[in-house]
Order: sequence, then C-alpha cells, then structure tokens
Amino acid sequence: MQTDTNRSHIQRGSKRANYDVARIHAILDAGLICQVAFVMAGEARVLPTAYARVDDALYFHGHLQNAMLQALCDGQTACVSVTLIDGLVLARSAFHHSMNYRSAVLYGQAQLVVGAEHRLGLDALMEHLTPGRLPTLRPYHPKELAATQVVRFDIREAAAKIRTGPPSDAAADYALPIWAGVLPLRLQAGPLQPCPQLAAETPLPAHLQQFVGA
Amino acid sequence: MQTDTNRSHIQRGSKRANYDVARIHAILDAGLICQVAFVMAGEARVLPTAYARVDDALYFHGHLQNAMLQALCDGQTACVSVTLIDGLVLARSAFHHSMNYRSAVLYGQAQLVVGAEHRLGLDALMEHLTPGRLPTLRPYHPKELAATQVVRFDIREAAAKIRTGPPSDAAADYALPIWAGVLPLRLQAGPLQPCPQLAAETPLPAHLQQFVGA
Repeated sequence: MQTDTNRSHIQRGSKRANYDVARIHAILDAGLICQVAFVMAGEARVLPTAYARVDDALYFHGHLQNAMLQALCDGQTACVSVTLIDGLVLARSAFHHSMNYRSAVLYGQAQLVVGAEHRLGLDALMEHLTPGRLPTLRPYHPKELAATQVVRFDIREAAAKIRTGPPSDAAADYALPIWAGVLPLRLQAGPLQPCPQLAAETPLPAHLQQFVGA
Repeated sequence: MQTDTNRSHIQRGSKRANYDVARIHAILDAGLICQVAFVMAGEARVLPTAYARVDDALYFHGHLQNAMLQALCDGQTACVSVTLIDGLVLARSAFHHSMNYRSAVLYGQAQLVVGAEHRLGLDALMEHLTPGRLPTLRPYHPKELAATQVVRFDIREAAAKIRTGPPSDAAADYALPIWAGVLPLRLQAGPLQPCPQLAAETPLPAHLQQFVGA
C-alpha cells in the first residue's frame, strides 16, 4: 500500500497522523467491523461489515445478492474506515475536549474472488473474529460455500490517525480547579452466554476458556 | 425523517430490519462516534467523527478548514453510519456465525449553522459525550467559538438493523457436541485517569463519580 498520498494525506490534526504500515495493520487486526463507503447512483453509501486482513488486503463476505459487494466490484475506488475508541479526553474547557482513538482509513478497489481464495477469505474472517474456533466447527456444506460471495479489497492507499494521552489544555487553564483527565473506554468481552439448545455435556473449547466468568 | 424508502430499505437480512424512529434515535443516542460518508472528486470517502443528535438532526463540529465538513455542505446527499457491537454469535458452523449489533444508517443533507444554533450544536456535542460536564468547565473564549464550525446534518431517511439473541443454527446441527452461544461485548468505561497536571485538591465532579474505580 501507499501512504501519505494526496488522497490519504491527513490535513487536520496532522500531529496525530501516522503513515506507518505496521501501525495501520495493527489497527485493522484489532478491529471487529469496518465501515465500507462506496458510490451508488452518484451518492455516497456506508455500511458496516465484518472483515479480515491478509497482507495488504481485506476480505468481506456476504450473500450472493449483497448489493454493497456488487457495487464495490464495479471498479470504483472505495473507502474503508476502522475506528477503535480508547477513551474520552476530559479537558478544562469544552474546546480542548477530545477522544483517544486509533483510526485507519483505506482507499482501494475490490474484486470477487473464487476457488481457493474464496475459501481462504472465509477462513480468515472466522479466524480474525474468533481465533482458534474454526477447527472446532461443523465443516462447510458445499451449498453454504456456493451461497456466499467473498470479495477482496486491495488497500492501495492508507493513513492512520492516533491520539493517546491526557488532555492538552490552554496553558492558562491548568491551574483551574476543574477535574481533567481521561476516561478510558475498551470493548469488554464476556461472560459467555451458552446457547439454550446446547447439547448436554458439550465441553467448552480451549479458545473460549479465557471468557469464562470474564 | 422517512424510513423504509427505496434508498433506506434493507434488502439483505430483512428480518433484522427496523424502521421505528424511536429505535433509530436510541441507537444514535447510545453511540459516541459516527462514520460520515460523502462524495469528493467523484469518489466515496468515509471518516469517523463525534456527533450529537437533536430531534431528527445530527451536529458535527470541526476546524474552519475541515475538508469533510466543507464537502458535506455542498448540497450532496451524504450517508452516516452508527454501529454498536453487542456480541459475537458463535454458531455450530462457520456459515451461521454472526454478530449481535445495533446499526443505524442515515441519509440526508448538511449545512453550516451560525449564531445561536452554532452554540446549541457545540453544547449538544459536549452533553452527548459526557452528560453533566459542560457546566463544570471554563466557558468558551470567543476566539474558540470563532475557530470552530458547526454543521447540522438533517436526517431525511433512515433505517436500523438489529440482531439479538443466540445463534440460529441449521436444524440438524443443534445435536452436535460443538459449543455454541454468545460472547457479549460492550464498551466498558473507567477507571478514571487524572491529568498529571491536575491542580491540587481539585474535587471530582458528580458527573464522573460513577467511574471511580470502575
């Protein structure tokens, strides 16, 4: 992928800009959903979807008639956003309030994939969302594979924007008796909720043990 | 706002579609950031931003030269997405895996606001992100107000998509000894991290008491 191109250059808040590919990959690998923006009938659309990253590409999947995936594969340059919220930055004035976050914005083109790559994309999605789970599952039925399309989005350009740390207040405001700091936010998992129809004596697999009583 | 129009009608997964305005408002009021999609130079762009809802509008804010806000105000119909992830739905086959989520997708037009509405939008943003905090802050300086533009996005059409509950597996799979259920996910706040430069003996205000040792 290319970074800091005309399209991906961050204009506002440039001290938070980051064009390091490893940092962009890390944001993509930490997210669960992305927001896919595309043009349809001349207008912008955006929809959330699950994804998995492999090298400099994302894989999406959906029903064969999924309108978003069809639009994405028409040759257009689409835009994908992954945003992770890490906290509210509580300053001494409203003006200096902010969030701590990790954001990646990607530009690229998508295409339908078939054969071995179709399966690779599906497996990557499962492994990304719940690592270690795939080998424990009932294998795919051929009709399930045939009913699911997989699209590869090649990341051509990308940028990250990251904010960390305490508030940056106006110099004269630090002495004010106004509470300031950060309220951390994180996506907390668990505890597990077993399916009401779980077969008797079904063991909890190793990949889910960390979420018992979490 | 209008719901279930040609533009906002949900084609795939229609049993999860929801066009109730109160449900859409509730999703918007529960989110912290939205994803704003717009067309620039014929291509789709999407960027995360903070927002607040007032009636059937969202308010955004940014620097006077914010390119996204400028593009939004060119008369185009833009699209805004708010997505809240509530859990991973762990089925007995990869095919039936899903997420529990609340998603709202909005279509509308944006315009710059001035005067009393400019201030109303800023106050709504502060109140949305940290309820009760605004009265405890150092008041705005006029130059801060002058440096910040506020844009109102009027929601013309909208739809929600919501999934809750356990996995829906293929009938023949329920008897399999494969663990299935939901891994709940939620944005967890706290504990508070005081600013290293907090003035001595600054009291913790009432609106933050719930996050002590959270």
